Amino acid sequence: MKHKIYGPELKNIPFEEKPVSCTSPLWRYSKNPIIEMNPFENASRVFNSSIIPYKGEFLGVFRADTTSGVPYLFIGRSKDGFKFEFETKPIEFHSKDGKIIKLEYAYDPRLLELEGEYYIIFCTSNHGPTLGIGKTKDFKYFELIDNPFLPYNRNGVLFPRKINGEYALLSRPSDAGHTLFGDIYLSYSKDMEYWGKHRFVMERGYEWWCGTKVGAGPVPIETDLGWLMFFHGANLTCSGLVYSIGAAILDRDDPSKVLYRCSNFLLAPEKEYEQTGYVPNVLFPVSCLCDSKTGRIAIYAGGADTVTEILFTDIDTVIDYILKYAR
Amino acid sequence: MKHKIYGPELKNIPFEEKPVSCTSPLWRYSKNPIIEMNPFENASRVFNSSIIPYKGEFLGVFRADTTSGVPYLFIGRSKDGFKFEFETKPIEFHSKDGKIIKLEYAYDPRLLELEGEYYIIFCTSNHGPTLGIGKTKDFKYFELIDNPFLPYNRNGVLFPRKINGEYALLSRPSDAGHTLFGDIYLSYSKDMEYWGKHRFVMERGYEWWCGTKVGAGPVPIETDLGWLMFFHGANLTCSGLVYSIGAAILDRDDPSKVLYRCSNFLLAPEKEYEQTGYVPNVLFPVSCLCDSKTGRIAIYAGGADTVTEILFTDIDTVIDYILKYAR
Repeated sequence: MKHKIYGPELKNIPFEEKPVSCTSPLWRYSKNPIIEMNPFENASRVFNSSIIPYKGEFLGVFRADTTSGVPYLFIGRSKDGFKFEFETKPIEFHSKDGKIIKLEYAYDPRLLELEGEYYIIFCTSNHGPTLGIGKTKDFKYFELIDNPFLPYNRNGVLFPRKINGEYALLSRPSDAGHTLFGDIYLSYSKDMEYWGKHRFVMERGYEWWCGTKVGAGPVPIETDLGWLMFFHGANLTCSGLVYSIGAAILDRDDPSKVLYRCSNFLLAPEKEYEQTGYVPNVLFPVSCLCDSKTGRIAIYAGGADTVTEILFTDIDTVIDYILKYAR
Repeated sequence: MKHKIYGPELKNIPFEEKPVSCTSPLWRYSKNPIIEMNPFENASRVFNSSIIPYKGEFLGVFRADTTSGVPYLFIGRSKDGFKFEFETKPIEFHSKDGKIIKLEYAYDPRLLELEGEYYIIFCTSNHGPTLGIGKTKDFKYFELIDNPFLPYNRNGVLFPRKINGEYALLSRPSDAGHTLFGDIYLSYSKDMEYWGKHRFVMERGYEWWCGTKVGAGPVPIETDLGWLMFFHGANLTCSGLVYSIGAAILDRDDPSKVLYRCSNFLLAPEKEYEQTGYVPNVLFPVSCLCDSKTGRIAIYAGGADTVTEILFTDIDTVIDYILKYAR
């Protein structure tokens, strides 16, 4: 490997070698989608979800749009990272003093382990969409931090370690609807409860594929060059938004600095399960698994707001591509 | 007086008695507007500004739209609260380490004294409108707190004392443009730098005059009933927004609780200098002076985003009106 992932090894990472015919820096799992429609009772569509290694196997927090159309978060478990079994009751969050908090909705969770806690950052409502931060030690009891962000916001993504002694989080401030703008910002916190020192990170592109909005995807991956940030970019066409996957490298000590930004998308909706579905033309990356030993990366993405799929790459392939097509 | 203002006396508060013919709970100064167009070199329009008592006289932080059309903040001084002399150089803010910070723009300042510092909360840009917090001890050297709020936000208003040991601030989250929605939220901070525990306070009204958006106006006034909050309410007509003045009483210990909300506006654009100007039909309250001994209140408001005017009321008149027309 030319490049290095800082992080643990993951021997059982779900992975397939790059097909010989593939010209893009990401390639799809041959048996995609891994989660089809109606995967469990009352769950119509499962997509935009987060998976982590857990006790030698895999655990995920999944967005399921229920048959009322309202999304909530559900736990899923897998031995191999491909096939998941779901809990059929949504995650129940509690306030600091133990009261159950009724959420209007919850979607697009980002899950990570940080200092012995598991954090879930997701979109929820406080009279308008904003970021919720949940935490758990055991995936049985979940606490919700008391309204850490004002509306309107979406796509909150924590860094996997403190930066200069503070928690750091990317987000995409928005409006109350299907926002037709979106840039990526960085926020800092000493305690996960109060946030400040907000920084502008990256604007939507002059490149058409991400000309309407950009938002962080999976938890950034620490590499020798900096933080590898996969992101979604949206393009407003005459018939709605098209979401593709992009990537950039952020400075390790000051992630508001974009060191390299790839002008090209890495992958765009091409397959039937990405181009058709509840929301056509959406390929939306939400979480990654990485193996620091081999440099392999598996990306879990939503297809057409309907199904869950896996994409693969490796650190050299993706960084070479970013550098080759950097602005 | 039936009701009580908690706060200092202000013997020299600018004031006029209510005209006999006046039927509204607020009445206009007989010589409005107090600041006409082009009041000083390079200042085209001065409006939406904040005035406080200062060393026996009055001092204000003024929004002046310069002849480039871009607004910045300027200091003004007055012996009587009616006639102001201006500094012709805009306020220069410094970072914590003394560097001058170049602001893209600055407008709609709210000024108050809190624990021996003077704070200015205003709208500025971090690649989109958001709240800036400046502070000074002497109105000569001004420091800017490091990006305390994410975009998009406007109309930040600090409470004049800590509540349950924390700073408290009202704001109106918005979008990047001439936002056609707006509700009032409350945020807390231990240090003015990091903010959290955000609360929903008050939604735009079913009443048409404030059916599009509501936002806090002057620093809330502490009374025996609770926090008296004057606010602006906007109504979208076929020819643009109309801004009027409303009022509500918030709980003293938990200002996210609205105890009384007046269904009626207290005053709407009626005069030529409110109905015509750079932005027709805007009456926009930004700051108050109060005398706790007599209960007198003077409100500084912008007219048509063009001039500055003064309105008067007293605590019994305004609270009686709020209670009479409370929802």
